[in-house]
Amino acid sequence: MTYCLAIRVDEGIVFAADTRTNAGVDYVTTYRKLRVFQPLPDRVFVLLAAGSLATTRELVDEIGRDLDNSPGVESLATVNYVFEAAKYVGNLSRQIQERHGPALARTGVSGEVTLILGGQIQGRPPEVLLIYPQGNYIAATDETPYLQVGETKYGKPILDRLVNHTLRLEEAAKLALVSLDATVRSNITVGLPFDFAAYRSDSLQIQSQVRIEADTPYYKQLREEWQMGFKEMFGRIQPFPFGGVQLAPVSSAPGPIAVGHDPSNRQVS
Amino acid sequence: MTYCLAIRVDEGIVFAADTRTNAGVDYVTTYRKLRVFQPLPDRVFVLLAAGSLATTRELVDEIGRDLDNSPGVESLATVNYVFEAAKYVGNLSRQIQERHGPALARTGVSGEVTLILGGQIQGRPPEVLLIYPQGNYIAATDETPYLQVGETKYGKPILDRLVNHTLRLEEAAKLALVSLDATVRSNITVGLPFDFAAYRSDSLQIQSQVRIEADTPYYKQLREEWQMGFKEMFGRIQPFPFGGVQLAPVSSAPGPIAVGHDPSNRQVS
Repeated sequence: MTYCLAIRVDEGIVFAADTRTNAGVDYVTTYRKLRVFQPLPDRVFVLLAAGSLATTRELVDEIGRDLDNSPGVESLATVNYVFEAAKYVGNLSRQIQERHGPALARTGVSGEVTLILGGQIQGRPPEVLLIYPQGNYIAATDETPYLQVGETKYGKPILDRLVNHTLRLEEAAKLALVSLDATVRSNITVGLPFDFAAYRSDSLQIQSQVRIEADTPYYKQLREEWQMGFKEMFGRIQPFPFGGVQLAPVSSAPGPIAVGHDPSNRQVS
Repeated sequence: MTYCLAIRVDEGIVFAADTRTNAGVDYVTTYRKLRVFQPLPDRVFVLLAAGSLATTRELVDEIGRDLDNSPGVESLATVNYVFEAAKYVGNLSRQIQERHGPALARTGVSGEVTLILGGQIQGRPPEVLLIYPQGNYIAATDETPYLQVGETKYGKPILDRLVNHTLRLEEAAKLALVSLDATVRSNITVGLPFDFAAYRSDSLQIQSQVRIEADTPYYKQLREEWQMGFKEMFGRIQPFPFGGVQLAPVSSAPGPIAVGHDPSNRQVS
């Protein structure tokens, strides 16, 4: 697995990705999953990828080849909107998956990738889109300013608590780092180092790219402060009121049978 | 889905469960998933269940029927160890799944349940075990004092940060509530109210059972303090050092090809 995310705030977009790849648990390597494309001065894109490492590699190779042959063929240099860039990338991705699909299916392996593509083309607003393996896409909005791919669940609660499109760009990056940190603590298929890129709206260039290692001082300090802060915060809350408010005794008898039933037999608890 | 967990500390065991069940997204109901069994004064058990609601119901019915016919048949009243109780419950669960398996398979539905069973039999230590759908089990230990079933990922980072077998029972319950709270914020298939049960080692009876509703004052206060604490803690950490420590520029070129390769084509990023 992997964990990549992008947060779109008013000031711009933050992109973040881990670098761990694995095949099962006994073949673990480090690969960059955050890639910057600036094919022309009027546009910049960042691509994050989760899924088949082979599909991602072929995708990036083809994006590069199309740029070499541009403007004769469609490429990141010819599209007029970020959403057109997403459709172009999504098409390439789907075609690669379809080419290898039958052979992969015979060995029970998925060639799927889920992508995040963000950036800006001059004269258009900055955008960040999540591209499904099928090639269609959704967008980050003011209401839902973040997009995640890969091992998304561990790092989601902290985003849901703190994300807001009015965050400063540096605060959004800090939040992304906290979300990545929560994930690497709980899941070994997501791992350091982390890659970060910051795009400031209307700048048409990546403001900064940073790689965070386990011993990067800022990250070490954040980790310690966050862990200590958690303990303090937890300690400040009063203990669970066992014995105090016994609100509704739980019986050992089976609960009441609900009125109505689920005809599909799919009901899960 | 569901989210149930148990934390075994030196003082005893805390059990916690949400109450949401669903079949798809358009049939959502509330069911108790935490059940207490005290078949004899020398033993007490708590059962948590995640998975097929029908399998769980049949399981609880059969546990009850066996108790009615005990000691003529094996039951929670006849076993001599908590692990024997887990094997007994695991056997029942597997048999139910096998009975309905072919019919369920024809409609593509799973009858699986994953269970947590904990408690104590006089003269033996308190134990809490996770019973897989196949009937085998693992245990909570001092090193890994918690067990989770169902939608486990959202609530795991906070456990990994703060859990410890030396926690007081009331602190363990508070931690379980924080873990449940993180989950309901991020996943609609887990929902309020929550059921809690506390067992104090060697007491051979459940000390307290509490149902937490959205408007339970303790939970309301915990939610607010936790959310506010998060914001404060986040605000205290210095902003992400974009522009400051540019540790390793990320290039737009594809990364180096790793030495070695994965012959299975399964490598995922």
